[in-house]
Amino acid sequence: MDQRPIGVFDSGMGGLTALRVLRRILPGEDLIYFGDTGRVPYGSRGRDTILRYARQDVAFLRSFDLKAVVVACGTVSANALAELTVENDLPFFGVVTPAARAAVERTRNGAIGLIGTAASIRSGAYEREIGALDPGARVFAAPCPLFVPLVENGRFRAEDPVVNLVAEDYLAPLREAGVDTLVLGCTHYPLLAEAIGKVMGPEVALVDSGATCADQAARSLAEQGLLAQREQGSCRFFVSDSTEDFARLASIFLGGGVDGPVERVEIQKYGK
Amino acid sequence: MDQRPIGVFDSGMGGLTALRVLRRILPGEDLIYFGDTGRVPYGSRGRDTILRYARQDVAFLRSFDLKAVVVACGTVSANALAELTVENDLPFFGVVTPAARAAVERTRNGAIGLIGTAASIRSGAYEREIGALDPGARVFAAPCPLFVPLVENGRFRAEDPVVNLVAEDYLAPLREAGVDTLVLGCTHYPLLAEAIGKVMGPEVALVDSGATCADQAARSLAEQGLLAQREQGSCRFFVSDSTEDFARLASIFLGGGVDGPVERVEIQKYGK
Repeated sequence: MDQRPIGVFDSGMGGLTALRVLRRILPGEDLIYFGDTGRVPYGSRGRDTILRYARQDVAFLRSFDLKAVVVACGTVSANALAELTVENDLPFFGVVTPAARAAVERTRNGAIGLIGTAASIRSGAYEREIGALDPGARVFAAPCPLFVPLVENGRFRAEDPVVNLVAEDYLAPLREAGVDTLVLGCTHYPLLAEAIGKVMGPEVALVDSGATCADQAARSLAEQGLLAQREQGSCRFFVSDSTEDFARLASIFLGGGVDGPVERVEIQKYGK
Repeated sequence: MDQRPIGVFDSGMGGLTALRVLRRILPGEDLIYFGDTGRVPYGSRGRDTILRYARQDVAFLRSFDLKAVVVACGTVSANALAELTVENDLPFFGVVTPAARAAVERTRNGAIGLIGTAASIRSGAYEREIGALDPGARVFAAPCPLFVPLVENGRFRAEDPVVNLVAEDYLAPLREAGVDTLVLGCTHYPLLAEAIGKVMGPEVALVDSGATCADQAARSLAEQGLLAQREQGSCRFFVSDSTEDFARLASIFLGGGVDGPVERVEIQKYGK
């Protein structure tokens, strides 16, 4: 048993889709969420910048006494998880490995589609994990740089013609390649699931990387006897931009109200 | 005569459209450009964050001995110019006042359209300037939050269906309001001029806020006898994200190659 909180972070709002799953499957845990809303998006930046920002995010989260960190950001998981794991003496859970495993388990024809930010796709991290699990799998990857700005601006509804056109633009090549499974390699993308499903068709399975990561973190903590023992945990939210703008959109990501305090962090003061 | 360089900054690439004009009309000036590519976009963030970032940008530029600063960013000009001017003992030129003046001079029917980032529109700065110059003018404002992500991702061509659909979505209400002049209140937007013109029609005059700002800065420096006297000035570029990604896109904004060194800055180390 370990009553300490779990830290969760993302470049912005996306990680809230993973937080939502964590809260459902581990209701007794205390959670501390950091969204770097003052510097989002990460996925269009260079790897050095992503690594520097991720280290600061972790330095802030570690100002609390945590038992584990969930990297609820596809871009950070794909580009910086190895460094963060080496530099910190507590368990880190990223989204790449569990999503790769889920994709390999679900595919029937071995053709797996992968979408993510430009930096996630450029890293090759998903391909490496999928290749290690199933050397015969073929991965068709497409960077989707406008998906995060769309979602962060509240545009994700499947009726939105802009959302539909951008989704068609990015996804048509994957549909034509005949993938039967599509990894949503960014935690913002579950909000676009309906629009993505419209383009890909109902027979293509969508793998929610944030949800599979939350599942894996829960299983791993349970196996190690590190779950908290309390009826109902709490949740605290921290952001690096205005707290007002956060609350408005966050409720959509969480599928309900923001039921904990939201505080602002001067993130550039943390780490190096 | 003043041989010192002029500092120019923007949240990212947009200010290069103003730099391009400055270089054409003041070829003898040394210019130092800073693009905060590690934290772009500014226009979707809260005012406190914009002000903090702008102060750091200026603190970096002032590590050089400058004679003036051109705030080639609509969001910073609309939200932070007053503070920057008070806090610094050198001339600052923003994009709002010259663009407002140009719009008032050009309109025939008194109906002026205004597009900009969410933060620029929210500030009300353009409306105040236009109202002060012509109390009878009617301003129709529309925030265009996806324009900067589109441009920064290299999507601005008038043949791009996504660009066209987003432009139609944002601009149709302004066209229907009957504006005869449209202020491009963000220095990224001149790259979208063709797409914007397609929606608005050829009879609507587009006011390029970065170009009018460059004009005004040149005129003001000339009046004060502060222009440099040399045949050909130099240009140095600084960015807060990867220098490679910058050079690729910057040549499009500049309408030619990046003909000066590009260096990376740890922007969070400047200012407070």
